[in-house]
Amino acid sequence: MGDKVGFVRMAEVAKAADRIPEIGIGMLGYAFMGKAHSHAYIDLPTFFWPPPARPKLVAICGRNEKLVSEASRRYRYKRYYTDWTKLVKDPEVELFDNAASNDMHAQPCIAAAESGKHIFCEKPLALSSQEARRMLDAVEKANVKHMVGYNYRFVPAVRLAKTLIEEGRLGRIYHYRARYLQEWIMDPNFPLIWKLQKEAAGSGPIGDLGSHIIDLARFLIGEVKSVSSVTTTFIKDRPLPDQPHKKGEVTVEDAFEAAVQFDNGAVGTLEATRFAAGRKNFNNFEINGEKGSIEFNLERLNELRVYDADEADQTKGWHNILVTESYHPFIEHYWPHGHIIGWEHTFINEVFHLLDAIANDRKIGPYAATFEDGYRCNSVMDAITQSAQTGRQVAVEY
Amino acid sequence: MGDKVGFVRMAEVAKAADRIPEIGIGMLGYAFMGKAHSHAYIDLPTFFWPPPARPKLVAICGRNEKLVSEASRRYRYKRYYTDWTKLVKDPEVELFDNAASNDMHAQPCIAAAESGKHIFCEKPLALSSQEARRMLDAVEKANVKHMVGYNYRFVPAVRLAKTLIEEGRLGRIYHYRARYLQEWIMDPNFPLIWKLQKEAAGSGPIGDLGSHIIDLARFLIGEVKSVSSVTTTFIKDRPLPDQPHKKGEVTVEDAFEAAVQFDNGAVGTLEATRFAAGRKNFNNFEINGEKGSIEFNLERLNELRVYDADEADQTKGWHNILVTESYHPFIEHYWPHGHIIGWEHTFINEVFHLLDAIANDRKIGPYAATFEDGYRCNSVMDAITQSAQTGRQVAVEY
Amino acid sequence: MGDKVGFVRMAEVAKAADRIPEIGIGMLGYAFMGKAHSHAYIDLPTFFWPPPARPKLVAICGRNEKLVSEASRRYRYKRYYTDWTKLVKDPEVELFDNAASNDMHAQPCIAAAESGKHIFCEKPLALSSQEARRMLDAVEKANVKHMVGYNYRFVPAVRLAKTLIEEGRLGRIYHYRARYLQEWIMDPNFPLIWKLQKEAAGSGPIGDLGSHIIDLARFLIGEVKSVSSVTTTFIKDRPLPDQPHKKGEVTVEDAFEAAVQFDNGAVGTLEATRFAAGRKNFNNFEINGEKGSIEFNLERLNELRVYDADEADQTKGWHNILVTESYHPFIEHYWPHGHIIGWEHTFINEVFHLLDAIANDRKIGPYAATFEDGYRCNSVMDAITQSAQTGRQVAVEY
Amino acid sequence: MGDKVGFVRMAEVAKAADRIPEIGIGMLGYAFMGKAHSHAYIDLPTFFWPPPARPKLVAICGRNEKLVSEASRRYRYKRYYTDWTKLVKDPEVELFDNAASNDMHAQPCIAAAESGKHIFCEKPLALSSQEARRMLDAVEKANVKHMVGYNYRFVPAVRLAKTLIEEGRLGRIYHYRARYLQEWIMDPNFPLIWKLQKEAAGSGPIGDLGSHIIDLARFLIGEVKSVSSVTTTFIKDRPLPDQPHKKGEVTVEDAFEAAVQFDNGAVGTLEATRFAAGRKNFNNFEINGEKGSIEFNLERLNELRVYDADEADQTKGWHNILVTESYHPFIEHYWPHGHIIGWEHTFINEVFHLLDAIANDRKIGPYAATFEDGYRCNSVMDAITQSAQTGRQVAVEY
Repeated sequence: MGDKVGFVRMAEVAKAADRIPEIGIGMLGYAFMGKAHSHAYIDLPTFFWPPPARPKLVAICGRNEKLVSEASRRYRYKRYYTDWTKLVKDPEVELFDNAASNDMHAQPCIAAAESGKHIFCEKPLALSSQEARRMLDAVEKANVKHMVGYNYRFVPAVRLAKTLIEEGRLGRIYHYRARYLQEWIMDPNFPLIWKLQKEAAGSGPIGDLGSHIIDLARFLIGEVKSVSSVTTTFIKDRPLPDQPHKKGEVTVEDAFEAAVQFDNGAVGTLEATRFAAGRKNFNNFEINGEKGSIEFNLERLNELRVYDADEADQTKGWHNILVTESYHPFIEHYWPHGHIIGWEHTFINEVFHLLDAIANDRKIGPYAATFEDGYRCNSVMDAITQSAQTGRQVAVEY
Repeated sequence: MGDKVGFVRMAEVAKAADRIPEIGIGMLGYAFMGKAHSHAYIDLPTFFWPPPARPKLVAICGRNEKLVSEASRRYRYKRYYTDWTKLVKDPEVELFDNAASNDMHAQPCIAAAESGKHIFCEKPLALSSQEARRMLDAVEKANVKHMVGYNYRFVPAVRLAKTLIEEGRLGRIYHYRARYLQEWIMDPNFPLIWKLQKEAAGSGPIGDLGSHIIDLARFLIGEVKSVSSVTTTFIKDRPLPDQPHKKGEVTVEDAFEAAVQFDNGAVGTLEATRFAAGRKNFNNFEINGEKGSIEFNLERLNELRVYDADEADQTKGWHNILVTESYHPFIEHYWPHGHIIGWEHTFINEVFHLLDAIANDRKIGPYAATFEDGYRCNSVMDAITQSAQTGRQVAVEY
Repeated sequence: MGDKVGFVRMAEVAKAADRIPEIGIGMLGYAFMGKAHSHAYIDLPTFFWPPPARPKLVAICGRNEKLVSEASRRYRYKRYYTDWTKLVKDPEVELFDNAASNDMHAQPCIAAAESGKHIFCEKPLALSSQEARRMLDAVEKANVKHMVGYNYRFVPAVRLAKTLIEEGRLGRIYHYRARYLQEWIMDPNFPLIWKLQKEAAGSGPIGDLGSHIIDLARFLIGEVKSVSSVTTTFIKDRPLPDQPHKKGEVTVEDAFEAAVQFDNGAVGTLEATRFAAGRKNFNNFEINGEKGSIEFNLERLNELRVYDADEADQTKGWHNILVTESYHPFIEHYWPHGHIIGWEHTFINEVFHLLDAIANDRKIGPYAATFEDGYRCNSVMDAITQSAQTGRQVAVEY
Repeated sequence: MGDKVGFVRMAEVAKAADRIPEIGIGMLGYAFMGKAHSHAYIDLPTFFWPPPARPKLVAICGRNEKLVSEASRRYRYKRYYTDWTKLVKDPEVELFDNAASNDMHAQPCIAAAESGKHIFCEKPLALSSQEARRMLDAVEKANVKHMVGYNYRFVPAVRLAKTLIEEGRLGRIYHYRARYLQEWIMDPNFPLIWKLQKEAAGSGPIGDLGSHIIDLARFLIGEVKSVSSVTTTFIKDRPLPDQPHKKGEVTVEDAFEAAVQFDNGAVGTLEATRFAAGRKNFNNFEINGEKGSIEFNLERLNELRVYDADEADQTKGWHNILVTESYHPFIEHYWPHGHIIGWEHTFINEVFHLLDAIANDRKIGPYAATFEDGYRCNSVMDAITQSAQTGRQVAVEY
């Protein structure tokens, strides 16, 4: 491994001021997203040095005391709660991080806003656009910083795509086709967890996966104008988690497919499914513009494929860019080129953005998703559901 | 190069009978498809030996005498015509091959059928499903062999996909997503050729590219039940071919996007465009089934990607199959493994199927597309157009 | 399929002169290479129109009368011989094509030269550099055209690589690493065919596969200065072809590995094996130069990967070039972009080069391999063998 | 993102005992490797929970006080030293981690062993096999745990390859070809840093990159028997780091190439260079065995390509395995499948192995590299240098 970069970087950081403020973190949830967010706070100062603020892990909250107390030790939180109303009022908590299930987003976030906490909420923001609207109103009224966990905006390759589009490198955009494919519930005996119940999840892959690619569509292309969609549920009944020999009804879709129009004239497709054998976490998009194209796939998140139509003829072709150079987005904080980063680093980048905004009173967005973005994403999700139900093209209303 | 296969193959063919019948070919058109079809007839006996019949290149027909006479010499036809009505009545012609533009399919094919000629017609079969229906009626009435040029059924990798599905290797099919992407009219100064005029072409990429992926959808998955689509025309006026400083209106779509449902419950997307920079001939599909998945891309037509969900855990992954083994479809006629074939070979395989059907009075289909398939494909195309116009989901009617 | 190119091309060729001369072909061998060469002569005028000369398939020769007579019908030769001495004296034969086994190269080629025939001989030219030298002397003395079948020089992507290097696009060359991997004799019961016997084949993969990558090394980089090699034979005894329950000794190597130095200061590796499971016809090279790199793999022969170190930072990456544009080498004769060609097309390009040289009295080379190239290639092969035997670095002598 | 795994894992870890011991870490070096190792200690408990021991970051040592003090704050060490002799005697330090330059390996490691510290030393272990032998003697005499930083053994895909080979899935091994390609000193004005000076580095890419692929060769295949190599230095003089307008001599090689034989009869190649434009961190190997093949590339470290020759015919092909399933090596500690990990995670896995060995008094190896492995690797490196100097095949002596 070449270490040419190491010495230089150390010399630069040595100039950094000695006094680094702290920001108190209160975390709701200790499962998948709770782990990802907690890790990001712990790992941040190693890479982003000096950090805008040192995250102070104040408290973590969850319903199961045994598990939440264990999580508090694992992730080094000072204390834990089993009642979220206490968490959002803890005076040492300055930033409320909501990594709970979708039906636990609105109420705690609104309460935290009312307590004057800054908020980082996992996606999708809400169970419906109406609920999202209320959450947006609350954070705006409270005048706190607010961010939604659309972390794929913070993949270096995705941010590079954003930069190229902003620079006009693709010209007018003609097409955006995105598909987020997974396979994790293909087994008919996979149990009826909360993600398969409309009350808790709001929707199936429309919210879980689709919200990510809708957010990327809005981030990279612009507002969605209309959707023409179909949804389906392949496995209609599944074993209950606690009574495996009894079955309950799956009340969310297993897949959706949509033809879409954008305000700027581009057209394309949006699709998501949990029934694509062999696709583990295949968040894939292709953008075609007047002057070139871009393709991305989350399973190879360190790479971006770019085609430049104006390039010299003989060697014109798709560039496979290993997005690990020090001049690429976020990479200066990590390793020398070719030493790839992983999925978890998207959260470190995202949390850096948020802490920097809080510590230095900067705007969240346009590179991160605000509650406004979360609301608009929920609106597109609602339109997809409505189009599938009515068999008509539905204009998205914000 | 290993030549282990060579000797064995020679020994086998040496047993072949000495008497090989001839079938007289009459070709309409000498451009792109005329070249592809003529080449297939010339090249057939080298690979498929002994052939079911030797193609006898009787006559080629086109409007421009200078060009058609040159083509007759190049492709070694005995004579040429500038009037197709003479071609379809030439008594030495037994097989009428229609490689002309879309608006020249119906009338000559119907006339040829009435003259008792077998017919091979390029795709899409007709300008509309009504016209296709009349052509189907004509060939059925005349009791001649009929085939439509959906040559991608004859890519070895596609045929292998068909075999795997027939064997139940994917189980119940959940998804089919297909997109045929090209880039050849992105230049706004590309002229208003016949393919951009509704009168001559019937439609834009719906017919040119979409018909291929619709045919593959029907071949691999089953009948399409409904479509929900959008179309758009990015460049609305283009220079006239003969008067480049005047512009005329583009009367076909530049792209279409559709969410589709199949009779068997599968859902997916169909898309085609001529505005995908960097995509030269990107006919790409992915199929997800209960037990596995399949992916194909025409730009790498010698490869098929297959995922088998039932495979042993540790090494489970997408197989990249180099479809060049002697046990793969059609390959025994070509070269040892790893010596790839090209796009033109699809036509050799297709023409073999047809000549064999004629010489040995076999059924065309289900592996080749008949006029019945051509008609059904036109019906789906019509539904896509109608859905885009009405903003409603349209049920396909056959 | 877009046919924009078709009409234009036809118009151009229509201007071509009407009188096309013929060149009489005499073919020795009817197995793998006999098929590949015969096919090229048949297929040439369809693509290269008007051709410099029409190949006239005069006679084919082989020891087994039944097989050679069948081959004559299949490939449409006027007559056949079972005695090569008659073939090389046939007055209608102007070009002697030697597609026989390695031990049948020298004597027939020298006899043909003495009869004043032009010569196309399969590779490797000879069993040793001494034998190759005699063949070179014979053709030079007879003043006939001579070419060796290093057909991979005629892959469009390889020729593009050559062009890029000639234009200085890579600058000074640092590295050439090539490996030609196959798997066809991994089964210990694969019989002891002539390719595994030193008397008939001269060597194992050094000649069969290694000669190709040595030729490409000389074509693309320059003369080889020294080799440091090892060879090995994994399976030392194999069943006799005619008596499968008896075994005979394998007298050639199964694999070789060599570290090499070039006259121009570049260094690299050359390797070939028939024991690489999963590698069907993996002729792969990578070139690293001062300004960029190139990579190629025969199993995807329509693609070339190029890295340009001088490109703008953010989007710098390996280009995957689909070498199917009309401005790419040889492609104008085939199909619109994205419609890939196959392995057999290398022979069509090669035979065009030869017939053009004969018909228009042009020089063979530097883009095709002459007997001089064949001799030099044999010299490197001899050095590899010698280094492996002595355990010393061997300087190549020409 | 599916979080099905999260809850289950939390439940399991909740059972873990409450008392976790600590192990005091003393780090020498704060540059590239110092960052990578420090990060691993910090990040370990988040993933490996409960950890065998909590790393206690006691002290970090470097010559530049300003930089080392900054590093101590960044990585949260309790104190720092500028004199390594103090570090190795610090009573709170139990594990001495040597992340310094190659010429600073032997003396501090031997001193630390004499102080009874366990040792983790970066690779290559020493400047020569003689020096490595002394270090090995010292740790054996002191009876401390010892590990060398051949971290690529801890890539999940590489460990999977090891498992497959151990299970006999490849049968007898025929070939190992490895190349480690980088490009970071191609600019002739890149300065003459310590890695380009024989006194400090011992060798060029032989030690820096080659030692990694030699270690993987020994790990995966077995002992190297002989090497036949060439080396070269492309840029012979470079600017001095402190006086850029003066030049000094590059005293290490820029590249090496070697043909190798293994004790078990396999043959192959080893190559490394810093002059491969476009190759950022391309540590790539291919193994061919009797029953299959394996390929790996560090730039896509979450993937492994495997070919199983015994698979059913039609779908036989290279598997691209996304090595991110919970049943793959190390992955259960990270994220759900498809959520890839990065280069830094190899160190977390490696440090877990070491802490577990210390805390539970387990053996280091065979899955990690001991000083014995480090010594043997240095022996192969010495043989490569000697072969290049003498032009003879050199038998490796241990």
